[in-house]
Amino acid sequence: MCTSVSFNGNHHYFGRNLDLDYTFNQEVVITPRNVVFELKNGKTLSSHFAMIGMAVISDNYPLYFDATNEKGLSIAGLNYPKNAFYQPDEKTEKSIASFELIPYVLSQCTTIDEVKSLLDDLIITDVAFNPEFPNSPLHWIIADKHAAITVESDRDGLHVYDNPVGVLTNNPPFPIQLFNLNNYRHLSAKTSANFFAPELDLDAYSNGMGAIGLPGDLSSMSRFVRATFTKEHSLKFQTVEEDINQFFHILSSVEQTKGLCDVGEEHYEYTIYSSCCDTDTGIYYYKTYNNSQISAVSLHHEDLEASDLIHYPLATKASIHSVN
Amino acid sequence: MCTSVSFNGNHHYFGRNLDLDYTFNQEVVITPRNVVFELKNGKTLSSHFAMIGMAVISDNYPLYFDATNEKGLSIAGLNYPKNAFYQPDEKTEKSIASFELIPYVLSQCTTIDEVKSLLDDLIITDVAFNPEFPNSPLHWIIADKHAAITVESDRDGLHVYDNPVGVLTNNPPFPIQLFNLNNYRHLSAKTSANFFAPELDLDAYSNGMGAIGLPGDLSSMSRFVRATFTKEHSLKFQTVEEDINQFFHILSSVEQTKGLCDVGEEHYEYTIYSSCCDTDTGIYYYKTYNNSQISAVSLHHEDLEASDLIHYPLATKASIHSVN
Amino acid sequence: MCTSVSFNGNHHYFGRNLDLDYTFNQEVVITPRNVVFELKNGKTLSSHFAMIGMAVISDNYPLYFDATNEKGLSIAGLNYPKNAFYQPDEKTEKSIASFELIPYVLSQCTTIDEVKSLLDDLIITDVAFNPEFPNSPLHWIIADKHAAITVESDRDGLHVYDNPVGVLTNNPPFPIQLFNLNNYRHLSAKTSANFFAPELDLDAYSNGMGAIGLPGDLSSMSRFVRATFTKEHSLKFQTVEEDINQFFHILSSVEQTKGLCDVGEEHYEYTIYSSCCDTDTGIYYYKTYNNSQISAVSLHHEDLEASDLIHYPLATKASIHSVN
Amino acid sequence: MCTSVSFNGNHHYFGRNLDLDYTFNQEVVITPRNVVFELKNGKTLSSHFAMIGMAVISDNYPLYFDATNEKGLSIAGLNYPKNAFYQPDEKTEKSIASFELIPYVLSQCTTIDEVKSLLDDLIITDVAFNPEFPNSPLHWIIADKHAAITVESDRDGLHVYDNPVGVLTNNPPFPIQLFNLNNYRHLSAKTSANFFAPELDLDAYSNGMGAIGLPGDLSSMSRFVRATFTKEHSLKFQTVEEDINQFFHILSSVEQTKGLCDVGEEHYEYTIYSSCCDTDTGIYYYKTYNNSQISAVSLHHEDLEASDLIHYPLATKASIHSVN
Repeated sequence: MCTSVSFNGNHHYFGRNLDLDYTFNQEVVITPRNVVFELKNGKTLSSHFAMIGMAVISDNYPLYFDATNEKGLSIAGLNYPKNAFYQPDEKTEKSIASFELIPYVLSQCTTIDEVKSLLDDLIITDVAFNPEFPNSPLHWIIADKHAAITVESDRDGLHVYDNPVGVLTNNPPFPIQLFNLNNYRHLSAKTSANFFAPELDLDAYSNGMGAIGLPGDLSSMSRFVRATFTKEHSLKFQTVEEDINQFFHILSSVEQTKGLCDVGEEHYEYTIYSSCCDTDTGIYYYKTYNNSQISAVSLHHEDLEASDLIHYPLATKASIHSVN
Repeated sequence: MCTSVSFNGNHHYFGRNLDLDYTFNQEVVITPRNVVFELKNGKTLSSHFAMIGMAVISDNYPLYFDATNEKGLSIAGLNYPKNAFYQPDEKTEKSIASFELIPYVLSQCTTIDEVKSLLDDLIITDVAFNPEFPNSPLHWIIADKHAAITVESDRDGLHVYDNPVGVLTNNPPFPIQLFNLNNYRHLSAKTSANFFAPELDLDAYSNGMGAIGLPGDLSSMSRFVRATFTKEHSLKFQTVEEDINQFFHILSSVEQTKGLCDVGEEHYEYTIYSSCCDTDTGIYYYKTYNNSQISAVSLHHEDLEASDLIHYPLATKASIHSVN
Repeated sequence: MCTSVSFNGNHHYFGRNLDLDYTFNQEVVITPRNVVFELKNGKTLSSHFAMIGMAVISDNYPLYFDATNEKGLSIAGLNYPKNAFYQPDEKTEKSIASFELIPYVLSQCTTIDEVKSLLDDLIITDVAFNPEFPNSPLHWIIADKHAAITVESDRDGLHVYDNPVGVLTNNPPFPIQLFNLNNYRHLSAKTSANFFAPELDLDAYSNGMGAIGLPGDLSSMSRFVRATFTKEHSLKFQTVEEDINQFFHILSSVEQTKGLCDVGEEHYEYTIYSSCCDTDTGIYYYKTYNNSQISAVSLHHEDLEASDLIHYPLATKASIHSVN
Repeated sequence: MCTSVSFNGNHHYFGRNLDLDYTFNQEVVITPRNVVFELKNGKTLSSHFAMIGMAVISDNYPLYFDATNEKGLSIAGLNYPKNAFYQPDEKTEKSIASFELIPYVLSQCTTIDEVKSLLDDLIITDVAFNPEFPNSPLHWIIADKHAAITVESDRDGLHVYDNPVGVLTNNPPFPIQLFNLNNYRHLSAKTSANFFAPELDLDAYSNGMGAIGLPGDLSSMSRFVRATFTKEHSLKFQTVEEDINQFFHILSSVEQTKGLCDVGEEHYEYTIYSSCCDTDTGIYYYKTYNNSQISAVSLHHEDLEASDLIHYPLATKASIHSVN
């Protein structure tokens, strides 16, 4: 399904894998400050922070999957089927349609603290973008360079959880994902001592045996564990370039390979794109399943006072460097 | 299928679970010293060490599943399907039919060193006990109080392996079973430190979490790992009575419960009996699936100079102590 | 820590393993109908249902670990450290001290439906039995022959959960335990087909391989999974005697062997006793770590109109049947 | 450590991850037909098949890690510590130093059948390349488009195993690696039915749950299982370009991320390069840890009648495509 990661190195980075068995016409989309968002509750967001991320544009509206604003605040929506519950339409000031949450938050907040205030009493409604575009059942990870939160709108209301790992995948609800990490506390990147039977001569025949028990499948709980372990043990680097490269390697640890996640009727989930936004510079890096070269789109190379969306189609074809 | 254990405490103990989906008419059988074994190779074992163990008696012959002789040497045969390979009949001095191996070894050896000499150049043949009684594909664990060995007659010949764990189950060949323990070297009876993500506050919410990853199923490799872990971490006790009790608890960790191992056509493997022979005293203790009380048969309570088999049917009915 | 099971066969059975690293002076205790319970809220339970179970008697008060009443309703308290939260003392009609819950429920209820009504608005308080006897952090499983529930008093209040598996261990809260079973849905008592690589000739070298992945350690989540799998795949029998025997085999699958659960400072949790109450007959069966023979105490063999506790010390010494 | 894969799609592909905690000065090296190999046994290979692969050049000698010849035959050497045993130097016609095996095989063979004949009676010796360059303990995978073999020189002699999975990692010896796959036969790319407890409503809350139990760590046995599962379930594609892309995704499933495999003293194994040779076209594709873009070097773009090595340094710096 999907995995999102918030990561601190020389800069702060935020990104995700989008894992689906079908693809939209998503693009890298920049929303300058003066693009007007007319909210379903009747309000308007007219002058706001600029943002960059991956979106499908429909009727000049950016339906973002993940995005970062010019203040370095980031948010990603991830699949949360059967658990996401959006309230029936109520046109109050605090009613926001689920598809509006990303621009609503990024338009006006600069930090997680501000986001928490904004989310206070917020009602996420089931108003659809338009009749042909049904809502997706989502939950969200929101991060700045200091903290991350998970936002889940369940049947019993809106939950805003501190997210100390800076990772989100899909089901089950976040508290269960977080609790589940306890079961892996004995796994290590180092070779362990022989605790099994100290009297026996048990051979550490390979490097990497200290993490035996780490799950390798593609279910959402296993990806949560693996992405967290990979992120937590990641080396620290001296350059932003190395950080970005490492970020994609972390995402690669939970990548979905074509054929490995069979959802029936010859459909297979796979990692359509992987992204890494350097939230300090506003540069959005991404790779696609068929093109492993990193592409980069810079927020600040555009006129951020504009009032129209700017968008760049994805590089989805292999880009091979021929040496001879 | 089966699990056998050799265990040192205040005395030396040897026993096994017999796991099958059908049962024979097995009994506790004592073979006094003057019972004559006429070997298929034409030789005769006439005056020999007495032995006690579990066997089916057919034509006055004790077909032992496991046994211990008066010198404290023990042997058990365990299922080894598709791997066991017995040589075509050759009537040489060193040719022993597979069903003869237990009495052949126990009749004349007192230690593992003597067994190793006896097994040198031995040929295990496919001669059947009689036309109605086909051979079982077996391998064997043989133990005295100082050492244990595993004996496997494979297609490429007879292998005699030192068995440092004192445990045997079934397939695959013993070297693979032993190697596999390496993969569990990080498991512990203690709660582990948090190596997974030291920056996260991971809760040791339960005792016993250091062994997460220990296999719980009934396959022969999983039973080998679990029996070894249980034996290796077993406490030491001050009395023989506690040792024997603990021995049955070790066997219980790999017990097969009725219904859990479905072999098809409404047949289920289960632990028909569990045994523990105190090899210092020659007392053979056992439990059966339906009777959890321990029964005891003593080798030395019989006339060991006799020339006829002595046998006691198993206590297979529940024996409940009514308090009021 | 502990495991409790509710099981239907020819009769309904309810029991548990008590796993601790220390032992109380627990006994099988029968509370006849006219033993007076003076509740901490000032009320009195004077004429009530009789009950039988395991308890420590202090000041003529039965501190039950688990018990069944003459109507066949059963309840067991299990360790729930760091999660159990009892309300500060409030002397209202609906305030019950944690140690009173078992007699309070069994005194007056005959079915789970009645228990649910009784628990409605109930407040479990932190009033201790006496100053020397601090409260244990517990949660409870309550069962009749038709249904089971789990009762947890958490920081956010009292939760009464339907318990469709009829199993309870310890942490984490019950909804997480129940959710976790989803991760094992592919495990089977049968040998699986080769889904891993159908083109390869992968050998089912042992029976029981379909359950590879079943956890074998002693943590509370692993015991919950293993006890559930064992119970769910248990065969059906034709006699009560076989049912009772099988119940103990189910408990044995999650037994804690001495040495295997090291809680530090040379202390080890182990299964002090295993119990099985036949709730149709009111006979309480049990085994202890050192005595594998089943003992039985019958509720209906006593004068249930009495006003004093009746108690039988446990059979904690090995009871071996000497055959010769 | 390392993982190598042979894969059939529209063409045949062969490649590997090189995982080490230190790096050599390896390059893509083409050996034209008339480069002279002077073997340590006194013989000379003067006119031979051209080959391309990854090598360190020392004294004009290509010390290949993996290579493919112009006939489409490929070979890779992988770490095999403590198990590899090379014979003491014997200057016979069938004595080949371990570092010579790759050019020796690729110089003269076109198929696996020819390789098997060549390996018959071959002795791999411990003669070092030069005094400063000690031998590496290796085993090898050799593949053409129809078959693959594994070659291991153990203490008991040279073993040539059919390799039906077309995957090689490191320890233990290949027969144990292959056997170990049996333990995963129940894992599937599809969601499984609920076999655990059919009476319970267990939720398939995520796609990909059928492979829960697939190991996710970096030990050599876990990488063998994971690479095989990934390869076996890989989709089939219609173009060579997609095949090559998929090949790198397969290798990515067993990639070693920096920090995840701690070998002590602040050293960490990581995937230095990943390669994929299209053996039909002789084009060698590769990625490096810091450069995820695929580079390509073509054997047939060079003068293959030359007598000097041709070499291209690796593209080890990030190559980012700036869109705006």
